[in-house]
Formats: sequence, structure tokens, C-alpha cells
Amino acid sequence: MTRNVVDPVTELWGDDLVPVARALLTSAVHCFARRGFTGTTTRDISTGAGLSPAALYVHFRSKEDVLFEIARRGHLRALEAVSVPEVLAGADDPPSRLRAVMSRFVTWHALHHVAARVCQYELAALNPEHLEEIAGIRREFPELFRAVIVEGVDRGDFAPVDAGRVVRALLSLGVDLVRWYRSDGPDSPEQLGRFYADLAVSMVSAVPGPPAG
Amino acid sequence: MTRNVVDPVTELWGDDLVPVARALLTSAVHCFARRGFTGTTTRDISTGAGLSPAALYVHFRSKEDVLFEIARRGHLRALEAVSVPEVLAGADDPPSRLRAVMSRFVTWHALHHVAARVCQYELAALNPEHLEEIAGIRREFPELFRAVIVEGVDRGDFAPVDAGRVVRALLSLGVDLVRWYRSDGPDSPEQLGRFYADLAVSMVSAVPGPPAG
Repeated sequence: MTRNVVDPVTELWGDDLVPVARALLTSAVHCFARRGFTGTTTRDISTGAGLSPAALYVHFRSKEDVLFEIARRGHLRALEAVSVPEVLAGADDPPSRLRAVMSRFVTWHALHHVAARVCQYELAALNPEHLEEIAGIRREFPELFRAVIVEGVDRGDFAPVDAGRVVRALLSLGVDLVRWYRSDGPDSPEQLGRFYADLAVSMVSAVPGPPAG
Repeated sequence: MTRNVVDPVTELWGDDLVPVARALLTSAVHCFARRGFTGTTTRDISTGAGLSPAALYVHFRSKEDVLFEIARRGHLRALEAVSVPEVLAGADDPPSRLRAVMSRFVTWHALHHVAARVCQYELAALNPEHLEEIAGIRREFPELFRAVIVEGVDRGDFAPVDAGRVVRALLSLGVDLVRWYRSDGPDSPEQLGRFYADLAVSMVSAVPGPPAG
């Protein structure tokens, strides 16, 4: 079944880029997802966008620069998706906020699993300065989850969990689904988001039974 | 802090291999983890084991063959770790069995995170027949978790969860920790195993509060 008539990759770029540059980034995501960064040439990216082989260099300095723009814009879009004001302030109680943040985080990663897979698995190909800039954006995600967990523990809405470990686990669930999620699977991105929001609330609730010892 | 005096990678191979072959596999794991499969030469692997540049070809047909042996033996060791008889039969009730399987799965992946990272992120470099053989071993893991979850749901020990989705989430937690786990972090492999065993039991317990809507 096809749920998305529009390729979700095309929605990741901004109006500050001309249409040709956006088409090159979209083509690059599909090339990198299929053949990896190393296995892709700048010619593949240009011709994949219906352009002449050297067209890429009109808009980007290098293949690495293309990967950086994909990673930068991809990570910023994901961060926007989970940090909109109504999520951070509107949902008054920590359980509702945890559900909102987790469902948005998971829905975004499922909808954008192709681009997210590139953002996740090809980062090693970035140069050190670019990698550090992406790492800076990535550090916002655990902070965002941690704030909700800590507030819920402080208010007594959640069990006295170890916030750092729980945040790691919640992020793992979203990050790893880009490995296995497929658009033609049983769950829509929104259904998966709701399921993982329920799991997140379970994970901060009191654990029944004895510890594993 | 250094917890492991012995490099855990050296424990992954079998007595059916001569010591030189085992040393080559150990060297290859460290090379692949550092520079990726593409960025590693057979010379790197041989000299990393203290051997002459072409020594690899005495024991392995190719660099791909080395990766396949790492992936095959790595996946089989992980499967042994979680499917020992006392785990499958000894722990009578499903909650205890879920704790045992999850804690062993997570402890193994944390202890062997370097080799597991290679097994996880370099599989695309395998040829199709080798990839299919590894995929066959990988399919055993969800089956093993699913059996415990289904029995727990049937007996009423667990909430009526969607076993397929919960199994995906449990596997994600173990798979993704090879991305972020470091031996000098706050948790030993066994501590992390116990924490994730608790999380697993939470995840099959009734979810408090309303669904995300």
C-alpha cells in the first residue's frame, strides 16, 4: 500500500534553497540510502535529479557538503517536530507531555525513515567540524526528553526512575526504527507513534515484580 | 576504568580455528570498527595481527569472507547467550523468563559492543548468499522473544500487548545500545542488563492513563 503520494524527502528542505538545490538533496538521500555515501558519486546525485553530471558543483562544494546539508536540515526538522510550543508548554502534566514528545519523535522518524537512515548511518563520512555541528543539534534531543522525565519524577507522576537511562532507551526506540521501518508495513507512522507513546509511559511507571537479581 | 582485562573480542571465536585465524578475526573487528569495511585493507588486518601483509589469504578467501566469519560467529554467540536451556525452561513463569532473556541479550550486546557494532553496521558489505545466512540467524531472536511474550499474554501474566510490536521495541533497545555504549561509561554490562530487564517487564504491563489520541 502507498500512504504517501508526495515523497516525504522533498519536505525536508527549506525555501532558502532554489528548487534545483532541493532536487539535488532529494536525489542524494535516495542515492546514499541505496548505495551508501562511499558508493555514490556526484554524477549519480546530479543525474538522479535529471541534471547534467557536473550540476551538483553549481550548488554544493562537494559530496561531503551535500551530506552535511542533508544531516543539518534533517536533524533540525526532527527537532522542530518534537519541540513545538504546544508540546513543551500546552500539555500541562508530564505524562501527556511525554506522550506528545515520544509520539512526535517516533512518527517523524517513521515518516522520514529513508532520510533518517542516511542521517544515522552515514555521519562518519562528515569532516570533523561538520560532525561537531551535527552532534550539537543531536544533544538537544536527550535534553528535551530529560526535562519531561525529571519533572514527572519530581511531581510524583512517574516512578523514581533513572532519567539518564530512560532517556537513552526512549531515544534508542526512535533511532533504531529507521533500521527496520518500511512504509508498506502494518503500522502507519502515526499508529507507531501512539504505540511508542504508550510504551514510554509504561517505562516510567513502577515496575511490577522483583528485580532480575 | 577498565573492567575487562581480556579483550572480549577474543572470546567470540571457536576452537575449530587455529590461533592465527582467531587473531586475524580479532584484528579485523578492530579495523572495521575504526575505519569501516570499505576503509580497511587486508594488509591492515594482517599487520594489525602482527603478521605479514598477505597472511590473511592463508586463512580466508577475501576481506568479505573475514566479515562473514565475524558476523556468523558473532550472531551465533549472541544467540547462544540468550537461548541457554535454563533460560528457556528453568525460569517457570513468563515474567522471570522475559527478565532472563532481556538481561542476557542486553548484557551480551554491551560486553561485545565493538564486535556487535561491526555485525550491525557493516552487513551491507556481505554478498547476497552470506547476507541471507546471517539473516536466517537473526530471525531466531524475534522468535525467541515472541514465544515468551505470547505465553505471558496467554497466561495473563502480561497485559494483552501486541507481541510483534513489543518484540521490535525490545530488540531495538539491545541493537541500538551498540551505537552508544562505552566500556568506560557509568553502567557495567550486567547493570545495564538488569535495568533493561525491568524496562521489558514494564513494557508488557498495563499502561496507565489515556492513549495519546
